[in-house]
Amino acid sequence: MSTTEIQVANPPFPTDFDLSNYLKTNQTQVEAALANSLPVVYPETIYESMRYSLLAGGKRLRPILCLATCEMMGGTIEMAMPTACALEMIHTMSLIHDDLPAMDNDDYRRGKLTNHKVYGDDIAILAGDGLLAYAFEYIARATLNVPPQQILQAIAHLARAVGAAGLVGGQVVDLQSEGKSDVTVETLSYIHNHKTGALLEACVVCGAILAGATEEQIGKLSRYAQNIGLSFQIIDDILDITATQAELGKTAGKDLQAQKVTYPSLWGLEASKIQAQELIAAAKAELAPFGTAAIPLLALADYITNRDR
Amino acid sequence: MSTTEIQVANPPFPTDFDLSNYLKTNQTQVEAALANSLPVVYPETIYESMRYSLLAGGKRLRPILCLATCEMMGGTIEMAMPTACALEMIHTMSLIHDDLPAMDNDDYRRGKLTNHKVYGDDIAILAGDGLLAYAFEYIARATLNVPPQQILQAIAHLARAVGAAGLVGGQVVDLQSEGKSDVTVETLSYIHNHKTGALLEACVVCGAILAGATEEQIGKLSRYAQNIGLSFQIIDDILDITATQAELGKTAGKDLQAQKVTYPSLWGLEASKIQAQELIAAAKAELAPFGTAAIPLLALADYITNRDR
Repeated sequence: MSTTEIQVANPPFPTDFDLSNYLKTNQTQVEAALANSLPVVYPETIYESMRYSLLAGGKRLRPILCLATCEMMGGTIEMAMPTACALEMIHTMSLIHDDLPAMDNDDYRRGKLTNHKVYGDDIAILAGDGLLAYAFEYIARATLNVPPQQILQAIAHLARAVGAAGLVGGQVVDLQSEGKSDVTVETLSYIHNHKTGALLEACVVCGAILAGATEEQIGKLSRYAQNIGLSFQIIDDILDITATQAELGKTAGKDLQAQKVTYPSLWGLEASKIQAQELIAAAKAELAPFGTAAIPLLALADYITNRDR
Repeated sequence: MSTTEIQVANPPFPTDFDLSNYLKTNQTQVEAALANSLPVVYPETIYESMRYSLLAGGKRLRPILCLATCEMMGGTIEMAMPTACALEMIHTMSLIHDDLPAMDNDDYRRGKLTNHKVYGDDIAILAGDGLLAYAFEYIARATLNVPPQQILQAIAHLARAVGAAGLVGGQVVDLQSEGKSDVTVETLSYIHNHKTGALLEACVVCGAILAGATEEQIGKLSRYAQNIGLSFQIIDDILDITATQAELGKTAGKDLQAQKVTYPSLWGLEASKIQAQELIAAAKAELAPFGTAAIPLLALADYITNRDR
């Protein structure tokens, strides 16, 4: 993808780390765990609706970030898997509600009809509510071999990342900024730090909490994730302009059509790419103290900002 | 209210228990805790929207059931207050989403405009999401002097009561049954046991869990609550027919207009009243082992089924 060549030269990790294989292995595990997490029982419609969106594919970057961080901090995949699944449930909930006619009114998502187009607005609202509630139930019930205090801390952090102090707050400011041509960089950053950044940060921080990381370690990881989150969003804005509908599987150029203020519209395309690069570099710098254990997170930082999703 | 004279004769508790004072004291405490639980910060709109519905009054029966059960089992009001507030946040979320045009399309609730009529459908959806997420954050963060394992157990139980296995599932079956004249008693009971009963049960069971109740005690309390929940709903159906719009503060007779199957429509008004009475008696019977400590819950059983809300 020549339009989004955003890479840091000479990545500081050995070339024998196979990111592609790492992603594939983790994605397979996450897909299996997600499929198992939510069996279909009566009333089937709601479970089918929840599974329709939850199992609609995607790179599963959020669960993988959570698992990778937990492992880096000395925990196991098993300790973090219920939380990793919960993160994807919450991400899915936010997409289902975001796509509703009362919100962004999107008909397609990842090349498939959106939840409400298949099941109706009422079931889509309830499927989102069901996924949000189940995310917390699943963490509380299915997490094993982690001290209860750490599970509670992860729940509190994740819940905050979803609510009015996080994702929901970001969406509100996004809605309020629509159609306005005088949106400042501060407001745009608020939107993205909350709408996208807060959940990505929660992926990393919850993984660290479950593994028993210290406050100082969590601080570094939080900054890593925030920087990744913002660059992720800048790339998303860039992709929205440059990618074609076929490549994205959703209506491309939608932000432009809606005359939405974006980083490229404020800074220009080239400056946005440079800013994204600087944020990746800052993110990676936070991982220095973790040594070679940070290799997967370093590689993920590059991958996320070079993705073709 | 002569139309809803559903009382059990000779209540088995001393007449010196002043339920009216008990409710007043607890309601005042709950109102104060709710008002403090959710300060308004940027972006103000979402917090105002959440508070608009959360602080819209009501008898606060759910929080009071939680506090009463925690106290009966030897816990304190303070141990259960964050969960009591969370229960009201979740109840409020369900009302906000239920009132949306895509769902029941109600313009009024407790005599006030519904959330989406004031803030718009988009903010109302997000306010519900925000309240649901915050409920879990608040329990996890604000609960003090309770072993973490018990807090986790309460979160898991409450989350299940809200999701597809509880409230959400009940709403789905309710939606699917609308306009159908051949709804069975089994389906109607499923709807109410999940749409209303599950959260009432969670109020009581979470209060008991936080106080460290045994599995056997929780079983009795769960059955108490389930019976109360069902009778509560039968009374609601009866009230829908008999009350006037002014008394309820919402569009009365709506079920009839919508040709909804209800207990009175299946059993008739008198048989429904008798069934409600029997459920109250069964609920109270579960409390026998708790002796005089059960006085508030016994009184609440009568109160809930004799309410004029």
